[in-house]
Amino acid sequence: MGMDMIEMIEKAEILMEALPFIQKFYGKIFVIKYGGHAMIDEKAKNWTAQDVVLLKYVGINPVVVHGGGPEINKAMEKMGKKPEFVHGLRVTDEETLDIVEMVLAGKINGDIVSKLSKFGGKAVGLSGKSGRIILAKKKLKKIKTEKGEEIEVDLGRVGETVEVNTELLEILINNGYIPVVSPIGLDEKGEAYNLNADTVAGDIAGALKAEKLILITDVDGIMDDINNPETLHRKLTASELKEMIEDGRIKGGMIPKAESALYALEHGVKSVHIINGKIPHALLLEIFTEEGIGTMITRD
Amino acid sequence: MGMDMIEMIEKAEILMEALPFIQKFYGKIFVIKYGGHAMIDEKAKNWTAQDVVLLKYVGINPVVVHGGGPEINKAMEKMGKKPEFVHGLRVTDEETLDIVEMVLAGKINGDIVSKLSKFGGKAVGLSGKSGRIILAKKKLKKIKTEKGEEIEVDLGRVGETVEVNTELLEILINNGYIPVVSPIGLDEKGEAYNLNADTVAGDIAGALKAEKLILITDVDGIMDDINNPETLHRKLTASELKEMIEDGRIKGGMIPKAESALYALEHGVKSVHIINGKIPHALLLEIFTEEGIGTMITRD
Amino acid sequence: MGMDMIEMIEKAEILMEALPFIQKFYGKIFVIKYGGHAMIDEKAKNWTAQDVVLLKYVGINPVVVHGGGPEINKAMEKMGKKPEFVHGLRVTDEETLDIVEMVLAGKINGDIVSKLSKFGGKAVGLSGKSGRIILAKKKLKKIKTEKGEEIEVDLGRVGETVEVNTELLEILINNGYIPVVSPIGLDEKGEAYNLNADTVAGDIAGALKAEKLILITDVDGIMDDINNPETLHRKLTASELKEMIEDGRIKGGMIPKAESALYALEHGVKSVHIINGKIPHALLLEIFTEEGIGTMITRD
Amino acid sequence: MGMDMIEMIEKAEILMEALPFIQKFYGKIFVIKYGGHAMIDEKAKNWTAQDVVLLKYVGINPVVVHGGGPEINKAMEKMGKKPEFVHGLRVTDEETLDIVEMVLAGKINGDIVSKLSKFGGKAVGLSGKSGRIILAKKKLKKIKTEKGEEIEVDLGRVGETVEVNTELLEILINNGYIPVVSPIGLDEKGEAYNLNADTVAGDIAGALKAEKLILITDVDGIMDDINNPETLHRKLTASELKEMIEDGRIKGGMIPKAESALYALEHGVKSVHIINGKIPHALLLEIFTEEGIGTMITRD
Amino acid sequence: MGMDMIEMIEKAEILMEALPFIQKFYGKIFVIKYGGHAMIDEKAKNWTAQDVVLLKYVGINPVVVHGGGPEINKAMEKMGKKPEFVHGLRVTDEETLDIVEMVLAGKINGDIVSKLSKFGGKAVGLSGKSGRIILAKKKLKKIKTEKGEEIEVDLGRVGETVEVNTELLEILINNGYIPVVSPIGLDEKGEAYNLNADTVAGDIAGALKAEKLILITDVDGIMDDINNPETLHRKLTASELKEMIEDGRIKGGMIPKAESALYALEHGVKSVHIINGKIPHALLLEIFTEEGIGTMITRD
Amino acid sequence: MGMDMIEMIEKAEILMEALPFIQKFYGKIFVIKYGGHAMIDEKAKNWTAQDVVLLKYVGINPVVVHGGGPEINKAMEKMGKKPEFVHGLRVTDEETLDIVEMVLAGKINGDIVSKLSKFGGKAVGLSGKSGRIILAKKKLKKIKTEKGEEIEVDLGRVGETVEVNTELLEILINNGYIPVVSPIGLDEKGEAYNLNADTVAGDIAGALKAEKLILITDVDGIMDDINNPETLHRKLTASELKEMIEDGRIKGGMIPKAESALYALEHGVKSVHIINGKIPHALLLEIFTEEGIGTMITRD
Repeated sequence: MGMDMIEMIEKAEILMEALPFIQKFYGKIFVIKYGGHAMIDEKAKNWTAQDVVLLKYVGINPVVVHGGGPEINKAMEKMGKKPEFVHGLRVTDEETLDIVEMVLAGKINGDIVSKLSKFGGKAVGLSGKSGRIILAKKKLKKIKTEKGEEIEVDLGRVGETVEVNTELLEILINNGYIPVVSPIGLDEKGEAYNLNADTVAGDIAGALKAEKLILITDVDGIMDDINNPETLHRKLTASELKEMIEDGRIKGGMIPKAESALYALEHGVKSVHIINGKIPHALLLEIFTEEGIGTMITRD
Repeated sequence: MGMDMIEMIEKAEILMEALPFIQKFYGKIFVIKYGGHAMIDEKAKNWTAQDVVLLKYVGINPVVVHGGGPEINKAMEKMGKKPEFVHGLRVTDEETLDIVEMVLAGKINGDIVSKLSKFGGKAVGLSGKSGRIILAKKKLKKIKTEKGEEIEVDLGRVGETVEVNTELLEILINNGYIPVVSPIGLDEKGEAYNLNADTVAGDIAGALKAEKLILITDVDGIMDDINNPETLHRKLTASELKEMIEDGRIKGGMIPKAESALYALEHGVKSVHIINGKIPHALLLEIFTEEGIGTMITRD
Repeated sequence: MGMDMIEMIEKAEILMEALPFIQKFYGKIFVIKYGGHAMIDEKAKNWTAQDVVLLKYVGINPVVVHGGGPEINKAMEKMGKKPEFVHGLRVTDEETLDIVEMVLAGKINGDIVSKLSKFGGKAVGLSGKSGRIILAKKKLKKIKTEKGEEIEVDLGRVGETVEVNTELLEILINNGYIPVVSPIGLDEKGEAYNLNADTVAGDIAGALKAEKLILITDVDGIMDDINNPETLHRKLTASELKEMIEDGRIKGGMIPKAESALYALEHGVKSVHIINGKIPHALLLEIFTEEGIGTMITRD
Repeated sequence: MGMDMIEMIEKAEILMEALPFIQKFYGKIFVIKYGGHAMIDEKAKNWTAQDVVLLKYVGINPVVVHGGGPEINKAMEKMGKKPEFVHGLRVTDEETLDIVEMVLAGKINGDIVSKLSKFGGKAVGLSGKSGRIILAKKKLKKIKTEKGEEIEVDLGRVGETVEVNTELLEILINNGYIPVVSPIGLDEKGEAYNLNADTVAGDIAGALKAEKLILITDVDGIMDDINNPETLHRKLTASELKEMIEDGRIKGGMIPKAESALYALEHGVKSVHIINGKIPHALLLEIFTEEGIGTMITRD
Repeated sequence: MGMDMIEMIEKAEILMEALPFIQKFYGKIFVIKYGGHAMIDEKAKNWTAQDVVLLKYVGINPVVVHGGGPEINKAMEKMGKKPEFVHGLRVTDEETLDIVEMVLAGKINGDIVSKLSKFGGKAVGLSGKSGRIILAKKKLKKIKTEKGEEIEVDLGRVGETVEVNTELLEILINNGYIPVVSPIGLDEKGEAYNLNADTVAGDIAGALKAEKLILITDVDGIMDDINNPETLHRKLTASELKEMIEDGRIKGGMIPKAESALYALEHGVKSVHIINGKIPHALLLEIFTEEGIGTMITRD
Repeated sequence: MGMDMIEMIEKAEILMEALPFIQKFYGKIFVIKYGGHAMIDEKAKNWTAQDVVLLKYVGINPVVVHGGGPEINKAMEKMGKKPEFVHGLRVTDEETLDIVEMVLAGKINGDIVSKLSKFGGKAVGLSGKSGRIILAKKKLKKIKTEKGEEIEVDLGRVGETVEVNTELLEILINNGYIPVVSPIGLDEKGEAYNLNADTVAGDIAGALKAEKLILITDVDGIMDDINNPETLHRKLTASELKEMIEDGRIKGGMIPKAESALYALEHGVKSVHIINGKIPHALLLEIFTEEGIGTMITRD
């Protein structure tokens, strides 16, 4: 047998290593939050799109939720839109919401659909308005004034999920499509709101009784020291995570991710994964290897 | 019997007048092109949304295709994007396409979905990329140079339809949803293109074997003299329309509409209607009255 | 805009007023009792048939139950059949039942089916025997003899419902048909019985978990003084109705209607309506206007 | 083995003899015309009902069409209705049609449904109006006047089939029901007509692509001499039957039966059977024995 | 009426006697254990196959489970395989299991499928391995040593049912097939085991919620004295049967049958029948006669 | 990034290489002939079973057909069965057929089902008798006598396919099962025959309109010189293959394979592959690499 053949056989054996994972997750739903910072690099976008399409073909049902972050800021700058502030908090006025929607539903969502389509996936881009996927309401932020009073600040068109309507998502999933959802919702009067993408991903995962919620970020997972890869937590339970939030070890942008993880676990999701989108094929590696590459959080 | 009762009975009789039309069109698909100029006015948007939702509830299956027009120009201005020209023709470069997509899929599409949702419709906003609805290719414009040579000019990311994939639209229709489609398509390599909305509406109507294609504009229909309402053509055949294109009576923005109408009629659509969106409930009036209010074009 | 156009737009707005009601009742079942006295007039028959067909087309599922009354008496006279009496109560012997069935299932049912068909409905006339819709048993009437003893009198082939078998009705409803049911039932040995149509309508409404039971009569609804329209009760609760039965304010032919209403409300029907079939399009007016035209009875 | 056991085993073997016939006709449709004269006797009605129910349970799909004959005359007499004549032909005026419908749809149809139900069948009685099963038109009778002119006589509400709409019948068959159809039809304007039951049975058999059309009569089949059982034709081809009509060997009430047979054979029915309903279980004997008991007519 | 006709009518009446039983058991599942000793005779095999096919055609759903017995011994002899013993108990080594599988799945199962097919049945032969119908585990036999200690003896590849997976059986039943199952199972590691056919029949009957479990043997049923047919028990309750096991009246090969009967009754089967396959058409006689021919055991 | 991570990423990339093939063959049927000689080795059996299960999980529908070869001879020897000959050709008498069936359906089929089950597949072992998959007839062999006459020799229970009934296979495929078929068929009288497994595989592939027929053998493919791997044909057209049969370059056991290939290609199969089962994961390598490892034969 020539060297070529030996190499080929090794490749086949690698394929075969994926079989137990494919069997385990066959027919299950994975909600994948594909975030702002991990999305800038063209190569990273390709990896993720390829991984998502492969998942679909091996019988797993991915649902993608995306955020916007840096691109929204760029667009706002370009349009000469200056941020408003109330009590030091940024306010989303009508015009800002328009820009947010344009970037999320008109640019980022479309780009993801193009990429998935390019690699052979049947993707459907959806605003959370469509099919009333996200029923939202205005989110009031509680802050403490200088005088120590707790007041609720109206930040404009920032919302939170009241209910996720899964009908449309389920129809699409069952017909072989990959839904790609922008975190925009409608309230009962038909008013639109911008929502936090991590939170929406958790809400959707819970409503769909997903097997996994996977948050693709630009860090390796939950770490005690963000600058020291050795402090990465491979596995955490919900209680351990809660403790880390409470004692302040989790902070900044990781907080909504951690809260979304806890919410999803409480609503029937089996495990939540936080992985680094800068690692090539991070998604596949997390799902199709025993040890994984990021942080996996499970119920107690 | 009091006056109130008499008035109420008259209302019931008006409802009853719609019955023969409801029966005639039960279960049929109507593709409705809802255009740029007719969309600016808030009241007009409400009328059209209400009409579309009512159609759905009485058993007709509307599919909405929208354009962009004025809003795109506004956004481009705001973003300081200056138009490029080749041989005097405007070129859609990558950046322009980005703005077009943002306005179409991110703003206008979302607004229509919000409105339909507000009046009780289950709407789903879709870029033509989603579910590969619009397979497109680059459109090369033939022009004559000053020297009389015919050359093809590359206008950038302007496309034309190669094929309409109706699967996703049919799934949505059969599950009670109203699809709202932006005229963006993907070519086989996953590159995006901007298409003419009138043409896309005709392509989709033909592919879905729609009963009617209805183009909502800001004029009363096809008129010999645009300033004289008395010259409105109530009924035209495809041949008559063709003649009017050839002898130049139809011109400007009416040309893509007329061509879209002819295409749709050739592909199985029973009739095409051009109506004025400034008339309150123009859609209902055209469908649920014998005489209609605009121009109806039928096969010979 | 000409006067014609203004009038047409007003008509469209009236159509639009029906939308919230159409949305509210979409896919719901309405059982409509269409009675003897309200049926004699040709115009009234047409109104009701049109209204029922319109309901079906706008997504509501009507089930018609009809009675016989005056036509049965006419037929019996014609056939020279003299009524028998036991303890002063009319007895339905075999021969009388034959005449009753002939009039109900052979004449009135067929007429309703013809009318619905004429206005474009897909109607199916059914005796309660068909598909064993009405499982009945002999009804024994309790009376007090002159001596004050309570005895049960056998009135022959008069029955009451034991169980409603909804399978056939549901198959027909789900396939787009309007079932029209005659109040004849079979007992377990295959013997036929005549039943009270109001009661059967209530039984069927309860078994189908109908949204509404609508009793079309020849009076305006439940009134304190039948000769004074001002005493009409617009809204009643089940308890109020019960009280009115007990204190004798409800009497005569209104009693089975009231009892049928109470039965239906107890078995899951949301509201019962008693309306006057002599008012043109009474059915539509009751359903598609906020205030209605008759008496609406709801659960407490 | 005791005598009892031997007898029981013989019974089992008789059951087994039916197996090849059951297999041959599994899932096939048999249209059974169950006529006026063969229906009077209570025992005969029971036999036929039992046979029809057994057929349904062993996987054959019976559709019953019935006539009226003698019962109609009795009812007309009772109601003091005198026959009108035009050119010596009986005319069916509105009032007569009412009586015909009452007897057919109200009495005979109901009786058959009761009987089938009694023996465990799920029967559904239907007028040909229901679900627009029979689309009819006025039948004009051609006669020769004394002067030898051929004229068309209007016999009133006597109709002929324009089209059989099988949708409702197929829904019922596929859901386990036995349809029982009265030969009443509606024209396009919703006017009712009385039709010849034999002809309707043939029309329905043809439309349903039935395997067999079985006409139950009160004679043994097609005989050269109606008084001599030895002249019974066991088997005939369509051509032979046509010849017998032409040379006058077939006459009287046998003519519509023969014509219905020819129509059915031309429209895809495999064989037509004319049998004597006075023979106990004639239906079973004709179907489940090699030789049969009446006349079987097949295509050439 | 000739003698022939009278005889034919009698036959039809015999057919009719089966109707109530056909109705009663319509759509129900019967698990039929068709055993070793009752299978040798060609005629007996034909009777049973015919009976099973007839059941399927009259709407009952038979599932056949078969054993092997004498044929296995013959094959082992032929192959020169000598039985091994441990503590006096026969051990099924790998090689023996191979022979058992070859005889069961390769010979007997195939013969039954051929026979059913010959008489018009759509049969599907299945090892209990297929579709993981029988999830098994090793059965350890408890025995007492000479010293009075209780020990568990490993008899090799002899298994017992852990779980019956009904999915495949239900798919086949609902598509008109007759499953024929060999009592071979797989454990979780994919190792095969031989199981007792009576027990498997009971397990499958319980899992399928069968109406009846019918064990075809070579004796008339449960008898107090196997040599005296007069001691046959026609009817027994589960408690009575339990008592008979406990007091030793039931012994030998009847014990697994009795235990299987009790298991099935406890798991929802309505009645268990033990009948003699040497009686022609024993299956039909037991099912289609009031008194039956063997022993019927019902729940208390 | 550590070495581990790099290695893992390489593995993910290898997985990704399979994606285009998975997409191309999604939902397609592959008929896999898994033969006698390639089956002896335990490791080879495992590879093939794993590969088949993986195919099923990535959306391809494998149907396995197996032969027997060496194991049949072993079993016959063991049972002391001596081969009979007619005109020098081996005759399959009843007893031999019994042994063949026992080995094929009882041993080899069961082993394959066990293996597939072990690696997580839902396999169903089927004789070609089941569900009448293979309708067969006796195959008469044409030979030339010494005197030069052409005569037909009856070789006993050796058959050829008359028709493949795909209903059962399609039901199983569509419900997620992997059918494993033994090459035994029934003729119209219910007599069993042994058929050539290669031929049966081609017949089934043709009847199922399979995408591919893959014959797993113990040689590398079609070679000009069986001892020189360099003479392997990578690609052949049907015509080239025909030529090679005619000019004698293809001989022995390769002839039925080549004929089966040609039959399958003529009946709609897109390509036939002949591969060497001794190469680890030969099946995967042939399907999921561009160049493949054996011989691929396509239509001209």
